[in-house]
Amino acid sequence: VPPIVSLLSDFGPSDVYAGVCEAVILAIAPDARVVHLSHGVPRQGVAQGARMLLEAIAYVPVGVHVAVVDPGVGSARRPLVIESGDGRRFVGPDNGLLLPAAEHCGGIAAAYEITEARLLLPHRSATFHGRDVFAPVAAHLAVGLEAGAVGPPVRSEALVRLPPDEPPEIRDGRMVVSCLHVDVFGNCSLGARSSDVDAAGLAMHASVRVLVDGRERGSARRGRVFADVPPGGLVLYEDSRGAAALGVNGGDAARRLGIEAGTRVTLERGA
Amino acid sequence: VPPIVSLLSDFGPSDVYAGVCEAVILAIAPDARVVHLSHGVPRQGVAQGARMLLEAIAYVPVGVHVAVVDPGVGSARRPLVIESGDGRRFVGPDNGLLLPAAEHCGGIAAAYEITEARLLLPHRSATFHGRDVFAPVAAHLAVGLEAGAVGPPVRSEALVRLPPDEPPEIRDGRMVVSCLHVDVFGNCSLGARSSDVDAAGLAMHASVRVLVDGRERGSARRGRVFADVPPGGLVLYEDSRGAAALGVNGGDAARRLGIEAGTRVTLERGA
Amino acid sequence: VPPIVSLLSDFGPSDVYAGVCEAVILAIAPDARVVHLSHGVPRQGVAQGARMLLEAIAYVPVGVHVAVVDPGVGSARRPLVIESGDGRRFVGPDNGLLLPAAEHCGGIAAAYEITEARLLLPHRSATFHGRDVFAPVAAHLAVGLEAGAVGPPVRSEALVRLPPDEPPEIRDGRMVVSCLHVDVFGNCSLGARSSDVDAAGLAMHASVRVLVDGRERGSARRGRVFADVPPGGLVLYEDSRGAAALGVNGGDAARRLGIEAGTRVTLERGA
Repeated sequence: VPPIVSLLSDFGPSDVYAGVCEAVILAIAPDARVVHLSHGVPRQGVAQGARMLLEAIAYVPVGVHVAVVDPGVGSARRPLVIESGDGRRFVGPDNGLLLPAAEHCGGIAAAYEITEARLLLPHRSATFHGRDVFAPVAAHLAVGLEAGAVGPPVRSEALVRLPPDEPPEIRDGRMVVSCLHVDVFGNCSLGARSSDVDAAGLAMHASVRVLVDGRERGSARRGRVFADVPPGGLVLYEDSRGAAALGVNGGDAARRLGIEAGTRVTLERGA
Repeated sequence: VPPIVSLLSDFGPSDVYAGVCEAVILAIAPDARVVHLSHGVPRQGVAQGARMLLEAIAYVPVGVHVAVVDPGVGSARRPLVIESGDGRRFVGPDNGLLLPAAEHCGGIAAAYEITEARLLLPHRSATFHGRDVFAPVAAHLAVGLEAGAVGPPVRSEALVRLPPDEPPEIRDGRMVVSCLHVDVFGNCSLGARSSDVDAAGLAMHASVRVLVDGRERGSARRGRVFADVPPGGLVLYEDSRGAAALGVNGGDAARRLGIEAGTRVTLERGA
Repeated sequence: VPPIVSLLSDFGPSDVYAGVCEAVILAIAPDARVVHLSHGVPRQGVAQGARMLLEAIAYVPVGVHVAVVDPGVGSARRPLVIESGDGRRFVGPDNGLLLPAAEHCGGIAAAYEITEARLLLPHRSATFHGRDVFAPVAAHLAVGLEAGAVGPPVRSEALVRLPPDEPPEIRDGRMVVSCLHVDVFGNCSLGARSSDVDAAGLAMHASVRVLVDGRERGSARRGRVFADVPPGGLVLYEDSRGAAALGVNGGDAARRLGIEAGTRVTLERGA
């Protein structure tokens, strides 16, 4: 079975950055299967990138997983390889990007700072470690290098962590929660689980008022799929990440409600 | 020869949806060649997706062809495998998306509703069947599963069909026709063939007035390539789909003419 | 080792054009590794495409390298295969797109006009030579065809060349230079090297005034990485292409300064 190397970044589709990373990997690991998970992480959005990697990782065969959202490139932030309990190797900057996914995959078994210059591209830029550091190291790992050969170990307590997401505020008939992600369809993924929605007493099929900044923006119905509401209707459902989410049947909930990632949303039991 | 699995969807480039579908396929069919035809179908644009799949399919080696434009996901709409006369297997929702391509490829030899739970991901969401249903079934087909093993057969007359495109209105010196697709260059693909343009008496190299909503928007010349008109000039040509199309040499016809997919355009013999 | 075929174009992410080119290649060369360097070249931007191919090529294993930015498609412009001194084969239109990369890779060893109809798709459109000419020829080269078998040789002096980039104007304490590329992060790559910046007497860590159209737009500091200036600060640095560039630590320099590709920028020694 060819080794898997997955890539996730904020490189976007316009530049050659993502393609060049794949090329660097193939130069070292010609049989690797390079899977582009997404290069559409919001620019320099470390927390969003961490969430997208976490969302994807359970579906990716065990392999080497590169993630690059790296506003501190070239500064003192460490380049890392993290081994997870299930045998994956995560490669990227020490800014919190890799940790939620690694912890989901059996926890952090070991972490190493990349210092071995012989594993890197010979001419290294100061601002594109995806190409010059992370891609070549990932390729070496894919063809058999041990993670411990990239450099000295780093204690897991010393790794940079992102602040935790703000938890939902739950009381009877009401939940206040942040929108964490708006997808291509305008579906708004919230920082809560279905069990939180239950705990707030917003029952399946019940009517739910949606408020932003204290003003009602729409009335949703809790359901399971878009078709549980009429075309154009708002539905509060469990999305494919397992998160509570707001969507519109055949439409764009984020636009309708004026919500973007980071917006604090209030859900209240309706009439 | 490694098996081909092609993907087409409206997932866009920002989310991990397309990458995760590839990952799911590789977990089951590690040797498959996954070809991303496009994930740029307009959101929930089933008819546009059907046209894009039809446009591409003749160029794709015989394999398994997944298409996901699926506004009815999670509702009663059936998940399908369709076998075409030339041995392809199409995988996607029963909403008309797959039929034009399948019919182009030797016709519908058989169709099956996907019901076999053992072929699907164990934890299935209600809203992402691309990942949870279509990708794993496609991978099983790629590694040798018979189409008939996915579930019970469906009669081809029972499959959901899209309404036919509105035909061009043709009379001497005049054609009224819909724009079906605007591509990245602003070229406007019309719902007519070159033979229709001939039938309307708009001869090669002739001048052609372009009207929208009864107002003249520009004057084109019928030609074969962009260079048949001066830089900035409008050309009525046969595009790479074999459709009559409006383009600007070095420019954007859709912007110039104020045309988008769905616009009804009148072409008249010029002076 | 599977043969590498790289693709670069202005096809964008929305249409099936890039995916269809990959499919055509796999139909002829099923074991080829197709690497999408980028399909985000600005529409019909031959010079930008040439720069992007040059930027990428040193990182791509020796193989067949297709580039399609082709406003003259279907006109008299020749379809080409160029062999470089290091054994690469470049495939694309004779409009200057391929030359900077080929010259960087050991120079032009030979060039041939593609005329052999048996190598092309049997039904050829007039407007999509990427699919109908360049992709199939590239695939035949990938599986062993000699470049000289595609058609008659073309003398390298007869190849179409792009006009050279406007050089920077350098005098003591001042440089006037064009922005050649704005990347996804808003970093502005300039038509000058670090040695030019040195020659203009703008020393490392010095303050640099940035003017456009005679008006000061901001004050930068010359540094090595973004973190050499405070968050939100402007930095004049050497980018991953080896070019002098303007960036903002955690922000978008192009938007801040009102710069796009082609803008003429003045850098002056600050206070």
